Amino acid sequence: MIIIMSQGATQNEIEQVIAKVTGAGLKVHLSEGKFRTIIGLIGEKKLMAQLPLEAMDGVEKTVSVTAGYKLVSREFKNEDTVIDIGGIFVGGTNITVMAGPCAVESREQLLESARIVKAAGAQFLRGGAYKPRTSPYSFQGLEEKGLEMLAEARDVTGLKIVTEVVDIESVPVVGAYADVLQIGARNMQNFQLLKAVGKSGMPVLLKRGIAATINEWLHAAEYIMSEGNYNVMFCERGIRTYEDYTRNTLDLSAVAALKNLSHLPVIVDPSHGTGLWKLVRPMSRAAIAAGGDGLMIEVHPQPAEALSDGNQSLTPKNFQTLMDEVKAIASVMGRDLL
Amino acid sequence: MIIIMSQGATQNEIEQVIAKVTGAGLKVHLSEGKFRTIIGLIGEKKLMAQLPLEAMDGVEKTVSVTAGYKLVSREFKNEDTVIDIGGIFVGGTNITVMAGPCAVESREQLLESARIVKAAGAQFLRGGAYKPRTSPYSFQGLEEKGLEMLAEARDVTGLKIVTEVVDIESVPVVGAYADVLQIGARNMQNFQLLKAVGKSGMPVLLKRGIAATINEWLHAAEYIMSEGNYNVMFCERGIRTYEDYTRNTLDLSAVAALKNLSHLPVIVDPSHGTGLWKLVRPMSRAAIAAGGDGLMIEVHPQPAEALSDGNQSLTPKNFQTLMDEVKAIASVMGRDLL
Amino acid sequence: MIIIMSQGATQNEIEQVIAKVTGAGLKVHLSEGKFRTIIGLIGEKKLMAQLPLEAMDGVEKTVSVTAGYKLVSREFKNEDTVIDIGGIFVGGTNITVMAGPCAVESREQLLESARIVKAAGAQFLRGGAYKPRTSPYSFQGLEEKGLEMLAEARDVTGLKIVTEVVDIESVPVVGAYADVLQIGARNMQNFQLLKAVGKSGMPVLLKRGIAATINEWLHAAEYIMSEGNYNVMFCERGIRTYEDYTRNTLDLSAVAALKNLSHLPVIVDPSHGTGLWKLVRPMSRAAIAAGGDGLMIEVHPQPAEALSDGNQSLTPKNFQTLMDEVKAIASVMGRDLL
Amino acid sequence: MIIIMSQGATQNEIEQVIAKVTGAGLKVHLSEGKFRTIIGLIGEKKLMAQLPLEAMDGVEKTVSVTAGYKLVSREFKNEDTVIDIGGIFVGGTNITVMAGPCAVESREQLLESARIVKAAGAQFLRGGAYKPRTSPYSFQGLEEKGLEMLAEARDVTGLKIVTEVVDIESVPVVGAYADVLQIGARNMQNFQLLKAVGKSGMPVLLKRGIAATINEWLHAAEYIMSEGNYNVMFCERGIRTYEDYTRNTLDLSAVAALKNLSHLPVIVDPSHGTGLWKLVRPMSRAAIAAGGDGLMIEVHPQPAEALSDGNQSLTPKNFQTLMDEVKAIASVMGRDLL
Repeated sequence: MIIIMSQGATQNEIEQVIAKVTGAGLKVHLSEGKFRTIIGLIGEKKLMAQLPLEAMDGVEKTVSVTAGYKLVSREFKNEDTVIDIGGIFVGGTNITVMAGPCAVESREQLLESARIVKAAGAQFLRGGAYKPRTSPYSFQGLEEKGLEMLAEARDVTGLKIVTEVVDIESVPVVGAYADVLQIGARNMQNFQLLKAVGKSGMPVLLKRGIAATINEWLHAAEYIMSEGNYNVMFCERGIRTYEDYTRNTLDLSAVAALKNLSHLPVIVDPSHGTGLWKLVRPMSRAAIAAGGDGLMIEVHPQPAEALSDGNQSLTPKNFQTLMDEVKAIASVMGRDLL
Repeated sequence: MIIIMSQGATQNEIEQVIAKVTGAGLKVHLSEGKFRTIIGLIGEKKLMAQLPLEAMDGVEKTVSVTAGYKLVSREFKNEDTVIDIGGIFVGGTNITVMAGPCAVESREQLLESARIVKAAGAQFLRGGAYKPRTSPYSFQGLEEKGLEMLAEARDVTGLKIVTEVVDIESVPVVGAYADVLQIGARNMQNFQLLKAVGKSGMPVLLKRGIAATINEWLHAAEYIMSEGNYNVMFCERGIRTYEDYTRNTLDLSAVAALKNLSHLPVIVDPSHGTGLWKLVRPMSRAAIAAGGDGLMIEVHPQPAEALSDGNQSLTPKNFQTLMDEVKAIASVMGRDLL
Repeated sequence: MIIIMSQGATQNEIEQVIAKVTGAGLKVHLSEGKFRTIIGLIGEKKLMAQLPLEAMDGVEKTVSVTAGYKLVSREFKNEDTVIDIGGIFVGGTNITVMAGPCAVESREQLLESARIVKAAGAQFLRGGAYKPRTSPYSFQGLEEKGLEMLAEARDVTGLKIVTEVVDIESVPVVGAYADVLQIGARNMQNFQLLKAVGKSGMPVLLKRGIAATINEWLHAAEYIMSEGNYNVMFCERGIRTYEDYTRNTLDLSAVAALKNLSHLPVIVDPSHGTGLWKLVRPMSRAAIAAGGDGLMIEVHPQPAEALSDGNQSLTPKNFQTLMDEVKAIASVMGRDLL
Repeated sequence: MIIIMSQGATQNEIEQVIAKVTGAGLKVHLSEGKFRTIIGLIGEKKLMAQLPLEAMDGVEKTVSVTAGYKLVSREFKNEDTVIDIGGIFVGGTNITVMAGPCAVESREQLLESARIVKAAGAQFLRGGAYKPRTSPYSFQGLEEKGLEMLAEARDVTGLKIVTEVVDIESVPVVGAYADVLQIGARNMQNFQLLKAVGKSGMPVLLKRGIAATINEWLHAAEYIMSEGNYNVMFCERGIRTYEDYTRNTLDLSAVAALKNLSHLPVIVDPSHGTGLWKLVRPMSRAAIAAGGDGLMIEVHPQPAEALSDGNQSLTPKNFQTLMDEVKAIASVMGRDLL
């Protein structure tokens, strides 16, 4: 961290800042310019983070020069992380496709969806058993019954299961049925839940918060990793902006940025990201072209019958076309979509 | 809800929509225009919310004409809600001030803060015992020890206590010490937690999510009220925008909007809302002038010593000036700041 | 400006940066820390602004420590600017109210509006003769005919006239009729137009761009002042955010911020800022409480007859109530609304 | 347009709305539901746009069911527009690359840039002669001298020239040198300028405003087309959001949306869109995969020497790699990059 003193800072103010900083166990590197003094801090990031320096007299601003996260960074680990999920590898040269309905609605709907996405080449079945909804009066999911159906679909098709966990209490039960625990956008900074899935040791798909910065997202992953769980995947699902034609603004530059900043795999969800099924295919192609490691796609046997998010779900036929297009892009990128 | 069919919608498509809607137990009101057909839906909102109509062929768009919330609305209850918190009344003609440090740091710091804010006229002591922080390496709060200190400060000063609860597990322990449970911005759509504080029956201060719409915020309050707990206060604390001079953009028009849409009290937090102590006084005056029912203000005996958010905390002297100014505005507004 | 070199920067890279900077006529102040080198730049801001330092090898980032504007700043001029507009003073202890219809629609409508706002205590008549509209098919204004009507209304009532100028060509004609030239939100960074109104020497009301930062806004005012025209007023009119309940998000913290950063007067337009007439009165009170120097309010004899923005216009009766409320707040603030 | 009356609307209020609407020359289609009345409007869009219906008593809200633009839409013209720019065709199956420095700095710099981008396969040379800059003290461009250099570069290399026009006065001079007139982001709603380039009849590249919605952008193009100029290209260059890691948030879903809504070509500028040269290659690939018709890329012989935006410019070598990658993606998309 660098402390930039204001132009009129007095010698006394400078000394008080130095006293405060050294008192906290940090070392300083002083640079006295013609117009202003700059104080560099050397020491543990954790100690720096707790100093309210900008409230001190004579301080104009402070500048962080190192990120507040560590385990998620490329500096910590340069090579791409590849996560082994029961023999399915996410990251590296692989392109992974997770597909299925937004919500588990019934045994028939789920098994049919599973067969469809399996046939088209997906490796994971997605489907919500616990559904966080804006209104308390909307469909909230089938809960454990839904989890049982997901497990049955895995038995029948061999697909892996990714599904959302919405609170600490249900980490064990969701963990008992699923292969990957999904943290939803609304819970990206539910730090107690992040610690809980961190402790579970299970693979985690961490969706980006509805208005989270890339920096906050990296820190959220750090919460999970700091519990010893290194099996973390990011999932870009669109951010909230002023634009209202799309449900969210899918931020593919965040995908490219994460691939520079972190070694963890990045999945893209263009279904929630755009909210419009017509945009799902072009944005899926773009996601892989941008360097994404996989896709999460809403597919429903009959979108018009879906209990949630039918407007953004693909029909089986559209999903098959998507897979063909994505395979072509993946091949140009030197990636394998098995 | 109104379904607007597209111009080229066929008779068959119109009939399928009608079949779907009536099959779900709703009635329709058909309006066949020269260029397009419009279908009005009559029946339970809950049933409508679960129909993915926009995915059906021939549907151009759907328009909600009634809000998805009920208990929080002025239509449900026209007169202002006044919440009785151990003899302190929030809402109505009262202006309530909640003040104190961002985090409970030590017994001395807290007791000193409590005496300062009490002397200046605040009715509530605020202070975080559990602190959600972006980085896992930042100060996370004193937890139950902090709660004990808050309770001691209440005993000494008579101030009521408002403090944040971050997960379901700690609702009982926080509830045992606090007078008001605060739901933080990051948890505004942690629906399991909303239900839990709803069941607790305790007064709840519901902060606005970092990028929550007014509509989502009203729905979040509905989650709490639908558990039978009607003691809910909103707290505007700034929203995330592109502007980076301030920490957040304090949205005072949301205060005026909520006073129109809902009967519940609205508190304003200009400390987090702006992140800059110089802006706290003008925005406190503005909050009351906009119709707010109270303020939540960060005050610290020595802001430059604070372990979190020192940059936005007021000194005791500045807080006293704020109280004087707010009293003058309150009096013009016909409100009492006791 | 401060250049922060990356941790692995080589001696050669550091030397190249120094060579580049000194070659541009700037001096450097070198600070070699244990982990990284920091280079302070001394010299003309203009020269620094033209160096693409972040593209150089070994540079991690650069930090500006001084603002890019000068004439608008409190550092340049500490006391509040008071602008004399034909004997009406804006700024200082005065509260100025500019009111009238969004657009000049007819002689009758305008004269009636003028009499109404004059009677209620406004000092300025507002009304658009040139209307920038999203669609080429919407009403575009009466142009010079509208200006003639504005001038007639001034003759009749004694009100000063503020109206928008949308291109360089019409600066002379608008200037011939108006007392204050308004730069609309869409033109805040139409730099050629800013220079033209700067050269005109006339008082300018500079509306904030739809998504302009406070910093960009200050720079836009600097464009006008750098042409020698010091009669500039800011006008906050709401910014674009994700919130869609209001037309824009009125940013009153920007008012408080500008009063700290600049000596120029700040007017607030809650009509465009909220887009909802019900919110205009509370936000007007809040604007003055936040430290604003005046208001710009849409008033229409019959809002439901207005050719543009009727939904946000006040009736004469509501405007009178607003003036009474604002006077009460102004008096608490030690301000005069004559 | 559809008018939704509020639940408690009186018969008198309904009749007044109908009188107002029919008085304006529109026909109505009345639909009286059990709980509320809905009034459909039939007639010219232009007439509807001028009615302030939401200000009338008893009106809850109005809903537009048709877009306010016409000439730009797929409904007006279904097949893709292909623009012939002196024998270079933009749109259809072609992928067009426009590349060069942000600003024209000198004859040598420009000619070298031109040779580099020509050798790598670009068809257009970009470069600003007039530079709109946030601060009046930043480099503002070489103006007509810069235009002469651009024309010379065309003579030498055969590249077409695209450059920005910033005001009406300079439309003729820029038009005399350039092949395509660029409207910059800050001028997207400078309607007088849009009309002027519309009248010029020259091909126009219309950049998206810094915070423009897709809908506003389509309307801006309609301004140009309504002057009889059908040679319009969109250019997505990133929108302003809360995310600050990237300079803007490149909105590739807008590209896919425009290809659905409009027949006009869409170019993508990932250099301004991200502000970070490391992200330019992945986002260029993604832009073409999303359905974009071309790219606008900043290339500089020596980015670290650039007078503006050096941080986002590619080196010649990186640009060559980009072209190779884009060609591979284009081929998968069935597009030709000649």
